[in-house]
Amino acid sequence: MRAFASDNYSGVHPLIMQEIINVNSDDMSSYGNDPVSEAALELFSKHFGSDAKIFFMATGTATNTLILKHITNSWNSVICADTAHINVDECGAVEAIAGIKIIHAEAVHGKLNVESIAPLLAGRKDVHQSQPAVISIAQNTELGTVYTLAETKAICDYAHEQGLLVHMDGARLANAAIRLGASFKEMTVDCGVDVLSFGGTKNGCMCAEAAIFINPEIGKNFEFVRKQGMQLISKMRYVGAQFKALLTDELWKKNATKANELATILAHKVQEISEVKITHPVETNAVFVTVPPHVIPQLQEKFPFYVWDESASEVRWMTSWATTEEDVENFVSSLKDLI
Amino acid sequence: MRAFASDNYSGVHPLIMQEIINVNSDDMSSYGNDPVSEAALELFSKHFGSDAKIFFMATGTATNTLILKHITNSWNSVICADTAHINVDECGAVEAIAGIKIIHAEAVHGKLNVESIAPLLAGRKDVHQSQPAVISIAQNTELGTVYTLAETKAICDYAHEQGLLVHMDGARLANAAIRLGASFKEMTVDCGVDVLSFGGTKNGCMCAEAAIFINPEIGKNFEFVRKQGMQLISKMRYVGAQFKALLTDELWKKNATKANELATILAHKVQEISEVKITHPVETNAVFVTVPPHVIPQLQEKFPFYVWDESASEVRWMTSWATTEEDVENFVSSLKDLI
Amino acid sequence: MRAFASDNYSGVHPLIMQEIINVNSDDMSSYGNDPVSEAALELFSKHFGSDAKIFFMATGTATNTLILKHITNSWNSVICADTAHINVDECGAVEAIAGIKIIHAEAVHGKLNVESIAPLLAGRKDVHQSQPAVISIAQNTELGTVYTLAETKAICDYAHEQGLLVHMDGARLANAAIRLGASFKEMTVDCGVDVLSFGGTKNGCMCAEAAIFINPEIGKNFEFVRKQGMQLISKMRYVGAQFKALLTDELWKKNATKANELATILAHKVQEISEVKITHPVETNAVFVTVPPHVIPQLQEKFPFYVWDESASEVRWMTSWATTEEDVENFVSSLKDLI
Amino acid sequence: MRAFASDNYSGVHPLIMQEIINVNSDDMSSYGNDPVSEAALELFSKHFGSDAKIFFMATGTATNTLILKHITNSWNSVICADTAHINVDECGAVEAIAGIKIIHAEAVHGKLNVESIAPLLAGRKDVHQSQPAVISIAQNTELGTVYTLAETKAICDYAHEQGLLVHMDGARLANAAIRLGASFKEMTVDCGVDVLSFGGTKNGCMCAEAAIFINPEIGKNFEFVRKQGMQLISKMRYVGAQFKALLTDELWKKNATKANELATILAHKVQEISEVKITHPVETNAVFVTVPPHVIPQLQEKFPFYVWDESASEVRWMTSWATTEEDVENFVSSLKDLI
Repeated sequence: MRAFASDNYSGVHPLIMQEIINVNSDDMSSYGNDPVSEAALELFSKHFGSDAKIFFMATGTATNTLILKHITNSWNSVICADTAHINVDECGAVEAIAGIKIIHAEAVHGKLNVESIAPLLAGRKDVHQSQPAVISIAQNTELGTVYTLAETKAICDYAHEQGLLVHMDGARLANAAIRLGASFKEMTVDCGVDVLSFGGTKNGCMCAEAAIFINPEIGKNFEFVRKQGMQLISKMRYVGAQFKALLTDELWKKNATKANELATILAHKVQEISEVKITHPVETNAVFVTVPPHVIPQLQEKFPFYVWDESASEVRWMTSWATTEEDVENFVSSLKDLI
Repeated sequence: MRAFASDNYSGVHPLIMQEIINVNSDDMSSYGNDPVSEAALELFSKHFGSDAKIFFMATGTATNTLILKHITNSWNSVICADTAHINVDECGAVEAIAGIKIIHAEAVHGKLNVESIAPLLAGRKDVHQSQPAVISIAQNTELGTVYTLAETKAICDYAHEQGLLVHMDGARLANAAIRLGASFKEMTVDCGVDVLSFGGTKNGCMCAEAAIFINPEIGKNFEFVRKQGMQLISKMRYVGAQFKALLTDELWKKNATKANELATILAHKVQEISEVKITHPVETNAVFVTVPPHVIPQLQEKFPFYVWDESASEVRWMTSWATTEEDVENFVSSLKDLI
Repeated sequence: MRAFASDNYSGVHPLIMQEIINVNSDDMSSYGNDPVSEAALELFSKHFGSDAKIFFMATGTATNTLILKHITNSWNSVICADTAHINVDECGAVEAIAGIKIIHAEAVHGKLNVESIAPLLAGRKDVHQSQPAVISIAQNTELGTVYTLAETKAICDYAHEQGLLVHMDGARLANAAIRLGASFKEMTVDCGVDVLSFGGTKNGCMCAEAAIFINPEIGKNFEFVRKQGMQLISKMRYVGAQFKALLTDELWKKNATKANELATILAHKVQEISEVKITHPVETNAVFVTVPPHVIPQLQEKFPFYVWDESASEVRWMTSWATTEEDVENFVSSLKDLI
Repeated sequence: MRAFASDNYSGVHPLIMQEIINVNSDDMSSYGNDPVSEAALELFSKHFGSDAKIFFMATGTATNTLILKHITNSWNSVICADTAHINVDECGAVEAIAGIKIIHAEAVHGKLNVESIAPLLAGRKDVHQSQPAVISIAQNTELGTVYTLAETKAICDYAHEQGLLVHMDGARLANAAIRLGASFKEMTVDCGVDVLSFGGTKNGCMCAEAAIFINPEIGKNFEFVRKQGMQLISKMRYVGAQFKALLTDELWKKNATKANELATILAHKVQEISEVKITHPVETNAVFVTVPPHVIPQLQEKFPFYVWDESASEVRWMTSWATTEEDVENFVSSLKDLI
């Protein structure tokens, strides 16, 4: 099967699988007290600084939810875009597990800005209202768009002025980095991001996410939250192995570059088709388009993908590290045939 | 002090206070197993039917929150207006205590309708999304407006077709009843409302709210939720006494009628002032207006009231059972002087 | 009815009722921003110091639960006696609302000591175990016994050495104060107690409890927890009035003295009956005894009381501010008749 | 490294790793809608019946916690042994995530029985007490002991008579099955167990646990709890692959048999050493012993293991599918040298 549904339809990159196999010998300490996990943490430190507190996790939903739980009190709220994964794709985990309220600012192409955030701070100090404590932005966004370094910095500066923290949902951080031509450090630490959900799974891993407290003070005691939050994998070496491979020889960069390039190619090809309209800037590995409704089911049969907004006949096509140029050609050719 | 801030600035109606005094003799069973509470429950049954399960509570926030907790699962969400008390005035209690997500539909003058609710049901069955289970409407609304019987029934019918329940936040149910010229039964049971937060405090009580499960099936075991929810008053007879007085000789009706009438008078008087604009239909005991910003602080000094939307110079003036026609006259006279 | 079931079967002391009536005129600011509540807070400050942060609440379960929620993180646990109200009489509120674990130390007559607490701290720093953060003791205990000042101080000193906080459940603090012949300050502040649940209801109020953060640092932001915790009474002046009366002219002391004295008299009288055995030292207003099983139902018909341990035929008899010497005589006389 | 610390120190069995490699090609549907996961579910059905609702999970703590959350209401409690993993090794997850209370019965060698459970049901129907709803037993127990089929059945029968459900924590179910010479079905379905945490990780998998609702009615809607509970692995095929291998050609049986046999050998060998005392019956793959305190640190340097009870100088030695007879010999030889 070749799919344009999500980058999580892809398998595990061969170099990552090889590292998993490499560490499969002998007994090793569990729960992350093993040399493989330690080596992976070391590699992370090169990107995020040696002060950062880093915790490996099994799912992105857990990473977002438990970070937000840890850096808030029950009477706090988190500000995000209405399209944010934490708002619409985590089955209420933030509310149920973290116990906090989500309030959303208007967003353009999935991106917040200071103007859209500011009005949400009006009720501060009023005991009847949940108190905003965190701004959560996704980089790249759920619509495939990317905050520029200046945009990220502006939000962080405003947040800090107002006594808020900034969380970045980086489930696809690598794809955003490629688009920006920036290092992980430049797009997070240097902009003032306080805490990051770092995604490995969608970029070629099997099951590897990380909570990265760039601001180490707010990461204190997160080890208890991870355990209680049911995310302390016992045979952690296998998560460590995935990150070790991903962060070695810039594999993360190669994988994300390929995914982004193929989305760009796909976007270029479909732009020529007058019945197809791109609905959001194609900046990473997602292409959002409206297509004639009748082609959707037939095209999905050959190449699975998601309908984004049924009423608008809007669909999402995603590429991954595993997508090939041939896949894109076949896909576009089928699309053209159906139209 | 005479205030137009909120009906909860008013004291306790003398007949209610008298009943509190009356029951203050002798020992009585605690936690509601007393003849006073039983008598009050009996009076409630006449309005809501003998099947209804009724529980006395101390605060309106508790009544709303614990009802919603009881009739949902953690993966559910509640649909309400963005202006709903449960959304903006309960400091995140629904999220923190009930653990569920609030999603809001667009509302006109604080009122939902089927058209605004329907799009929120698109993600049902999708495991990634919180599943709507309840529509919560306030009668009257936080903006002082009232759902007609037909409007309430339309929402209930739609909810039930879709497998949802309807919760009515009746913190000011009596005021809405007066406006509708309807009985409690007609505006709740007969429309299909499943569960009701019934407010006594704002209508002349000291501290008396009730959770009324019109649909008794969904009220099963709520006694445990009330206790665990920290709302099982030990000397319950004093809450019972308040409700007994409120529901005797239609005191509830007299109190609400007076509050509504004085708001109508106030609205009429200020309509004549060209600098004052009424922003929502005055249907119960609240008058929302925009006024010249400079008059606000000076008028507040004499008669406390709340600014509703600072940027729009919009304020809320509320009347209560204790407001007098003279109060309204003095208030309007001061307002005119300041303008 | 005259009952020996619980001090919460009693009514409201006339002086407290009078103060409730006194404040029932005019409009007043809601939510505690009123002169009555402020006057009551002022009186509390005289006992607990002007730094203490004090919050009025509606129920004792709420006071205990929300305090514990506020001074812990989700991965913490609270150490208490297995007989503690928070463990057995709050329907799991600490676990459900505060989300923390209760672990219990062995207790003698309801009292903890350093020796019974110390073994529970073995798992600290182990990420797999809930981390003890608070020792919660009841003064007086649920078995009517009292910690001496030295005993309280020993627990507080040990707690602080270990980095733990001490919560005192003072639902019946006044009764313990009488027994100790100590002021509130001597038995709490001076011993090192960090935070106190202060009970007014059982000592003659209608519905008045207070969370008292003696250590003001840990009380910061509790106003949000109280509101979210559904305990922010709108017409707070009536709670303030109760406390104002209770703390004026040492009414609290008179009420508790009477309750304690009558329990002592009751204990003396029943000690003469060979079939009745006192099971816990009678130090405040509760008398725990074993009686012949057959007398229980008949005696309960005349004077309600609770069976404590059915298998042991152990019952609890409580006196209150409202109990009279005649009540005790009638009770003992009935008891003797039945035996 | 060769360790006797825990079976989770072992790696992944080669046949399981091979299956992981086998499924690593092509795109596949995420979140478990893939042929590999479906094949694994099919294999599970052969053991637990085609009605059972089965959900793959990432950690054992999540499996226990989310099952218990799903089958209880907030006012319920779970009865377990004081040594239960859910009580002492999950950092308060049941309380914090499921929001329910744990109450523990006295246990002998980690095992409950009807006599120890019955007294905990005394407070049923009393609104002040958390209501027991589930009995949770571990098979094998955390002390390596095993419930006989009759013992399991007796607990299930009693639970059902009393309206309770039975949860079995089967983190090491395979080891217990070997001991009993029983099939999974005989030791769960046939005894009346309602829901099971099935562990794959400790028996040779990388990261593979399953929630198995034998009683399908109580498993309804668990898919939402899993997602919200942050356990819906996106590339689920890799979990499916592990279970597929484990349940093919009885690999689970071979692995558990080896682990158990080596523990038996180890127990036999150390029984000869007079300074070593076995403290619990060795029925599966754990050997609990007291040893002279001075040997512990030196032995741990060569072969990591856990101290169970420092005050008693009691330690736990565990074997796994990866332990060899030579490992045991070397271990015992080192032990003898140190003594």
